[in-house]
Amino acid sequence: MKIQVRAAIQEKLTVRDCHIFGVENFTLLGYHLFTVDVVEGTRCYTCNKRITMKSKGEQALEILREKSIDCWVILIREGKEKAVELLLEKGFVGESAFIFTRDRKIAVVASYDKERVEDMEVLTYTKGIREVLPSVLKEISPRKIYMNFSEHDHTIDSLTHGLFIKFQTILEEIAFAGEVLSSEVFLEELRSVKIPEEIRRIREAVRVTEEIFEELPNFVHEGVTEIEILEKMTDLTYKSGCELAWEDPAVTFGLQTELGHRISSKRKLKKNESIHIDFGVKYEGYCSDLQRVFYYGKNPPQEMVRAFETIKKAQEASMQVIEPGKKGYEIDGTARKIITENGYPEYNHGLGHQIGREVHDGGCILGPLWERYEKNSRKPVKEGNVFTVEPSIHGKVNLGLEDDIVVKKRGEYLSHPQREIIEI
Amino acid sequence: MKIQVRAAIQEKLTVRDCHIFGVENFTLLGYHLFTVDVVEGTRCYTCNKRITMKSKGEQALEILREKSIDCWVILIREGKEKAVELLLEKGFVGESAFIFTRDRKIAVVASYDKERVEDMEVLTYTKGIREVLPSVLKEISPRKIYMNFSEHDHTIDSLTHGLFIKFQTILEEIAFAGEVLSSEVFLEELRSVKIPEEIRRIREAVRVTEEIFEELPNFVHEGVTEIEILEKMTDLTYKSGCELAWEDPAVTFGLQTELGHRISSKRKLKKNESIHIDFGVKYEGYCSDLQRVFYYGKNPPQEMVRAFETIKKAQEASMQVIEPGKKGYEIDGTARKIITENGYPEYNHGLGHQIGREVHDGGCILGPLWERYEKNSRKPVKEGNVFTVEPSIHGKVNLGLEDDIVVKKRGEYLSHPQREIIEI
Repeated sequence: MKIQVRAAIQEKLTVRDCHIFGVENFTLLGYHLFTVDVVEGTRCYTCNKRITMKSKGEQALEILREKSIDCWVILIREGKEKAVELLLEKGFVGESAFIFTRDRKIAVVASYDKERVEDMEVLTYTKGIREVLPSVLKEISPRKIYMNFSEHDHTIDSLTHGLFIKFQTILEEIAFAGEVLSSEVFLEELRSVKIPEEIRRIREAVRVTEEIFEELPNFVHEGVTEIEILEKMTDLTYKSGCELAWEDPAVTFGLQTELGHRISSKRKLKKNESIHIDFGVKYEGYCSDLQRVFYYGKNPPQEMVRAFETIKKAQEASMQVIEPGKKGYEIDGTARKIITENGYPEYNHGLGHQIGREVHDGGCILGPLWERYEKNSRKPVKEGNVFTVEPSIHGKVNLGLEDDIVVKKRGEYLSHPQREIIEI
Repeated sequence: MKIQVRAAIQEKLTVRDCHIFGVENFTLLGYHLFTVDVVEGTRCYTCNKRITMKSKGEQALEILREKSIDCWVILIREGKEKAVELLLEKGFVGESAFIFTRDRKIAVVASYDKERVEDMEVLTYTKGIREVLPSVLKEISPRKIYMNFSEHDHTIDSLTHGLFIKFQTILEEIAFAGEVLSSEVFLEELRSVKIPEEIRRIREAVRVTEEIFEELPNFVHEGVTEIEILEKMTDLTYKSGCELAWEDPAVTFGLQTELGHRISSKRKLKKNESIHIDFGVKYEGYCSDLQRVFYYGKNPPQEMVRAFETIKKAQEASMQVIEPGKKGYEIDGTARKIITENGYPEYNHGLGHQIGREVHDGGCILGPLWERYEKNSRKPVKEGNVFTVEPSIHGKVNLGLEDDIVVKKRGEYLSHPQREIIEI
């Protein structure tokens, strides 16, 4: 496996900062600070150890140890389970259990699924999972078992109710006397603190999205419909080997048209009309989510320019205050204030959400202290979080900009923020 | 919407058999028996009514009435839910409830998801689903509520445990005194009895798969690896606007290599070697699943020809006995007997599974009375079921053929069964 990572140190590889990697194209800027193209398996110049990237599985063990979690059980059977995708990036045909303790990663799978598991202890069954699972649980003998359910976070809530019922009967069989709890206490962190490989994929998804935006002048013309533009962008997405990051991205003509989770229409583009696009792709399982603003004609009207400049200012101001430890609502507040100070109404959504395997990933949100965000907008931003930053203006004029950023010592753009209305 | 359906009557349109459609290219073979290309919305020659295809939603209401089901509640929030995909073919961002009674189809969705619902009563909420859902349930006042959970059928078990817990609190709020039961009693039928539009999509998935198999001579050459062939087939799949029907379809070189849920390897193809491929695509959400047998060279060895002919005979014999009402194990038994009578060991799987939105769809299976199949192989085959028929030989020689069929008055091939080993 070859993985190219830029700015190795900033993205936290599991190597000591003093290693110097046996690769070309690196610039030594100091003892701890250097920029380098790192390839998995490369030897360090000084200690001769091979560099290995931290996997999500290793990150999981670290977090379980940190939070003193005894035992996390993930159940899956033919289909998808969000934590299995995150950790193993594979589906399984037979009923399977993946068990993480503070120092073990155990897979209980059907014999024909054996080859799908890498880098875990593998136990197989032939006729049914009850041949193996009860005895493994007995051996581990946890006091508490954590499972993937949540009443309010869809990125955690991936255990099906039928499998939960079946698991209860297995716990009865082994006379388990402890508690079954929600994995939310650690899974949220595991999902939202990205390892370098995850950031690489999001970066690539962003790159593809930006390339697709650049193609726009080739298929935007008078009379084209919103849907036609979207279809063309969807084609380009698949041609790039990506998928759409979500169903129904939105192409919106005209400043008077509402934005939001909108279905594109058959409205035809006229000369001197604005185009707003909210679009993202999924690259190797990871999403981008960008908004861009175009004008079909020359010299956009003053009301559009003023709105655009205000949004841009709000985005830039919020970027100035993003840093680990800062609460979501504080960052949102900075952008929100600039919008209202300029005489526009408050935007009716949060400034930004996390992205990852889901386009709306869970955990800390850059949102106001409103009922629907409160719990998550009080949470602190963490190093490794990837957010959208998307201030907007709604009302007589509707416009928004959206970029994707990663939190390191401060916020860093993964996309190239739009600084001028693009005329087509 | 234009839908082309062949053999209209056999595929059960919701029109009377005596209608004669105002379309070209039809052959009137008798009063009730004719073959015709039917297009949605076409007027009947005799009664002037427009033809409409039955939707999955209408089929659901029919089945609920037939089985005297009061109330089916499907819960979903950002992501996928199998029954929502089946019925609405869409995802939803906000928490949503879809309620089917014997005569109503009600959608409770976030205001921004409103446009996604068609052909249902739509109720929207702004801050949370509790604004609306409790009062709707109170109004319907069902004695029993059916929900999508199952301990043993993955195609039914799509309700997450977190949403189940939340729903319990809503039921407490309205003092619901009835039972919450598994939707298995009707959802299995709804999934597995296909309407014409579903059969059309499976047929198209099969067509694309067969076209991809025909391309094989263009990229099979000495030294090519199993993985390389698979990658090329995957490329062709995406170019056709389809997706893979499942992760890791299998390309297997050599008669001695085990088949099954196998990961393709870096093994290089030699002259005079067999190639076995198990592959399928997904077209507009519906799967194909085919196995084809190739020989890289001229004049395949006798052991390969004998195995191929035996498998073919087993497949043909089982096709002779497929008809509505016949039990799954009876059909499996016919094929199994031919394999063993020819001196080969019994194959270690079922003769066939259903396909649809999932490549392994639930319900009746053409399998033996073994523990893992028993419940489903005792079930009767129904008109409208779509099955794979895949006898195989395992042991010293490993080979299999797989075709997709639809059950009408008897079994009819959707694919073109392979009748000779294809030499490349």
